[in-house]
Amino acid sequence: MEQRISFVTLAVADLEASRRFYVEGLRWHPELDVPGEVVMFAAGERLVLSLWDRAQFEAEVGGRTVEGPGLLPFTLAHNVETPALVDEVLSLAGEAGAEVGAATDREWGGYTGYFADPDGVRWEVAWNPGPIGRRVVPGTDPTPRR
Amino acid sequence: MEQRISFVTLAVADLEASRRFYVEGLRWHPELDVPGEVVMFAAGERLVLSLWDRAQFEAEVGGRTVEGPGLLPFTLAHNVETPALVDEVLSLAGEAGAEVGAATDREWGGYTGYFADPDGVRWEVAWNPGPIGRRVVPGTDPTPRR
Repeated sequence: MEQRISFVTLAVADLEASRRFYVEGLRWHPELDVPGEVVMFAAGERLVLSLWDRAQFEAEVGGRTVEGPGLLPFTLAHNVETPALVDEVLSLAGEAGAEVGAATDREWGGYTGYFADPDGVRWEVAWNPGPIGRRVVPGTDPTPRR
Repeated sequence: MEQRISFVTLAVADLEASRRFYVEGLRWHPELDVPGEVVMFAAGERLVLSLWDRAQFEAEVGGRTVEGPGLLPFTLAHNVETPALVDEVLSLAGEAGAEVGAATDREWGGYTGYFADPDGVRWEVAWNPGPIGRRVVPGTDPTPRR
């Protein structure tokens, strides 16, 4: 098989709240928008982020989703070209109503913070000057940390 | 912010078991491999799948991950060009020791099945002849379902 993730699907408790967060808050543009069912966004060259109404997800997948307490065992990351953009995206997420963890310098040389979407899905917003970080960011700025 | 997912990170209970599944079973090639800590794979043009030792994930993120029972509220999908490739990938995953749900025709016109990785992360393997499906697959085959 090829090494490719094509879709990341999140089962969301309140699709309208999620839609508002991503569309009005983060200003993402839906690629497909079926009220009460699903909202899909392009999230990369050949990648789609799909927000799927949790009840419908459970019905199709066949089971109930896990209940807390605890962290979801996965995170998404949004990598950016500069440390200043980390702060800018976190600020946008905060204005959109997200819980935000302020960015800090990391031992490994990066600068990252996070926000949580309405279902508690944790997005790390990261400036990573290493090879893996450069790999994922279009037009990485090669200048050192401000 | 741009609409981009840069990393999908999974907190895994047994990194060596996950490594074996993805590297030996699915034959993915790591981009970064730090035994006992993390294994990262290119999973798209500017996308990385990161498998992170759960204890380290919990220490850095600051909390325990949710315990079952129940489904994880997210899935990944791997879309392919033809229905035959759906069966081929599921067969590979089965040989690698995954729980596999045989593919079936879907109401919406596609053909999909799934496998679960060692932590129960559900991967849908999909042939989706619609616009969204064509969007994510390099070189979609326009011929009808076999």
